[in-house]
Amino acid sequence: MNNDRFQKGLETLNAIDGEAGQRVFDNLGDIAPDFARFLAECFGDIYSRPALSLKARETAVIAALAALGHAIPQLKVHLHAGLNVGLAPDEITEIIMMMSMYAGFPAALNAMFAAREVFMERGLL
Amino acid sequence: MNNDRFQKGLETLNAIDGEAGQRVFDNLGDIAPDFARFLAECFGDIYSRPALSLKARETAVIAALAALGHAIPQLKVHLHAGLNVGLAPDEITEIIMMMSMYAGFPAALNAMFAAREVFMERGLL
Amino acid sequence: MNNDRFQKGLETLNAIDGEAGQRVFDNLGDIAPDFARFLAECFGDIYSRPALSLKARETAVIAALAALGHAIPQLKVHLHAGLNVGLAPDEITEIIMMMSMYAGFPAALNAMFAAREVFMERGLL
Amino acid sequence: MNNDRFQKGLETLNAIDGEAGQRVFDNLGDIAPDFARFLAECFGDIYSRPALSLKARETAVIAALAALGHAIPQLKVHLHAGLNVGLAPDEITEIIMMMSMYAGFPAALNAMFAAREVFMERGLL
Amino acid sequence: MNNDRFQKGLETLNAIDGEAGQRVFDNLGDIAPDFARFLAECFGDIYSRPALSLKARETAVIAALAALGHAIPQLKVHLHAGLNVGLAPDEITEIIMMMSMYAGFPAALNAMFAAREVFMERGLL
Amino acid sequence: MNNDRFQKGLETLNAIDGEAGQRVFDNLGDIAPDFARFLAECFGDIYSRPALSLKARETAVIAALAALGHAIPQLKVHLHAGLNVGLAPDEITEIIMMMSMYAGFPAALNAMFAAREVFMERGLL
Repeated sequence: MNNDRFQKGLETLNAIDGEAGQRVFDNLGDIAPDFARFLAECFGDIYSRPALSLKARETAVIAALAALGHAIPQLKVHLHAGLNVGLAPDEITEIIMMMSMYAGFPAALNAMFAAREVFMERGLL
Repeated sequence: MNNDRFQKGLETLNAIDGEAGQRVFDNLGDIAPDFARFLAECFGDIYSRPALSLKARETAVIAALAALGHAIPQLKVHLHAGLNVGLAPDEITEIIMMMSMYAGFPAALNAMFAAREVFMERGLL
Repeated sequence: MNNDRFQKGLETLNAIDGEAGQRVFDNLGDIAPDFARFLAECFGDIYSRPALSLKARETAVIAALAALGHAIPQLKVHLHAGLNVGLAPDEITEIIMMMSMYAGFPAALNAMFAAREVFMERGLL
Repeated sequence: MNNDRFQKGLETLNAIDGEAGQRVFDNLGDIAPDFARFLAECFGDIYSRPALSLKARETAVIAALAALGHAIPQLKVHLHAGLNVGLAPDEITEIIMMMSMYAGFPAALNAMFAAREVFMERGLL
Repeated sequence: MNNDRFQKGLETLNAIDGEAGQRVFDNLGDIAPDFARFLAECFGDIYSRPALSLKARETAVIAALAALGHAIPQLKVHLHAGLNVGLAPDEITEIIMMMSMYAGFPAALNAMFAAREVFMERGLL
Repeated sequence: MNNDRFQKGLETLNAIDGEAGQRVFDNLGDIAPDFARFLAECFGDIYSRPALSLKARETAVIAALAALGHAIPQLKVHLHAGLNVGLAPDEITEIIMMMSMYAGFPAALNAMFAAREVFMERGLL
């Protein structure tokens, strides 16, 4: 039965995060496969809930990861995810710019430079 | 000229945060009036930008303040603001629930209990 | 099927955290019952894994919550949990004292005062 | 020999933090006397070093505790300490105001309201 | 009129942070020019205020960024800035050493290694 | 007399952290020898206390550094230390996995990838 949760989670993860999420998942395979599974299951449980659109979810996650400051690799995954689910590049830079007020300029700057890398990788800049 | 930025900021602050924002502003008046002015001006500069809707802005701020963990009083102001600009209560609880994945359950729990207080204060619970 | 995960989680939560955990759970009931369920399910998934003793788990959680600094209410729940699963009071104060080296004296002091409250509540001081 | 370090630390703590520091020290006495001693010894080791003036030290500590966000009780002790060693109230509010740029407005606001309490307690507002 | 704030901010940024600040500014140009402008304007507003000397300001910022832990690139900019406005290398290492008490040894160690890089770059070590 | 504290600290640091701790110590030698000494002395004071086993201490430190998020280099030192004092690799991955509940998946993922590097370096993966 848990296989269903896992399968659903993996599909959701791939649909939203794409290649970047898959890479995280693969790198956990040899050291902590149960953790990879737990992550996918939680992801599937949460992201399949109808109360928020995927655009709103990624708006929230990009803001939170930018504010936290210690989560640049995960922020990059969600910058890809945000673009995948329809956030425009200038919506993303606006979310990050706004974080300078709530978490300070250093956190916002590091997030903006992460966005710069992701946008360049995707030919958006 | 700066008076224009300040006036615009104050109006934006009142329109979005309402009474809760005004209280913060008033409490700064005796100890740090320049800080109150700087806050209002930055707020006005950022929130008047067209790239994001107010709902998307409050989605981002609620997520970030929930994740940061040390900003419960400001989270309450923005829970009011979120409701003021049209976020539904169950959109707000969903944003906070999702933060348990990105900042852990303790941060999400403290944010949820802040939402509980605000919803009760407004007769939504 | 999910009912099994939930039921198991709730039992684990009660066995370890006792009354303090139940109170958290109850307070979520009106505002975010799905979040309470998600929390209980994750808790059950993780704490039922055999790789670590409950004493080692609570050692880790007390250390982490003391270091994070923004999670005093959850730290108190886990101070109860630590005592419930067999940590001695002076093991707990030693964990917290050690955190002064890794997260600074302010975080360690706030955690120590939380321990003081919990120990007094349980007649251990 | 260690008694010397402890004695010197205690004297330094009293000279700089005054009553507020003594209260912290006293509250640790029943639960963790070794931690109180370790804290006093480290404090004495650091604050007796000649490379920085006490004003510069308290400037640094007030800034850091304001930025961290989870250390309001310790920030209050150091707001007293800052005033004790000669920082003017408007130097302190300026340090905190500047933190809005580096740690965000919520951290700076909470610190400013802590300063408001301390200034009122001392009749400075 | 805003051009004046921007121009003044840019001049202040260059005078204090020097080349290191300019590099940050330039890297924002293609992805978020409005954010670069907002940063320069806020910087100019704050740093032109007379209540604190530039040495005291950089003392505060170096302490805060060392304590926050997630802001190493910005810490390096302000280590340059601190040296530019007259902080001696051993004042800077003393500020960072003191942070081990307030934010823990890991944050202080990472900051000290950032200082080591900056001092080496400037031939001070 | 202080030489005794320092000598004892250095021996404890070497016994627990091994080469990884020595490298940190050496890198501080040219920029901040007093800080290196202060670190060794505090380390010796704390780790020689009998209230906790070294395995319990490293369980606490690995959890805390994983949760903090900004301390990856120090986490790696303590992953080595944990293995040196007898934590099994799957105890370590379990501690880190559990941190996803308390500090979020991003902090736990970064810690798990640090463990992956350390385990590979030691031929454990």
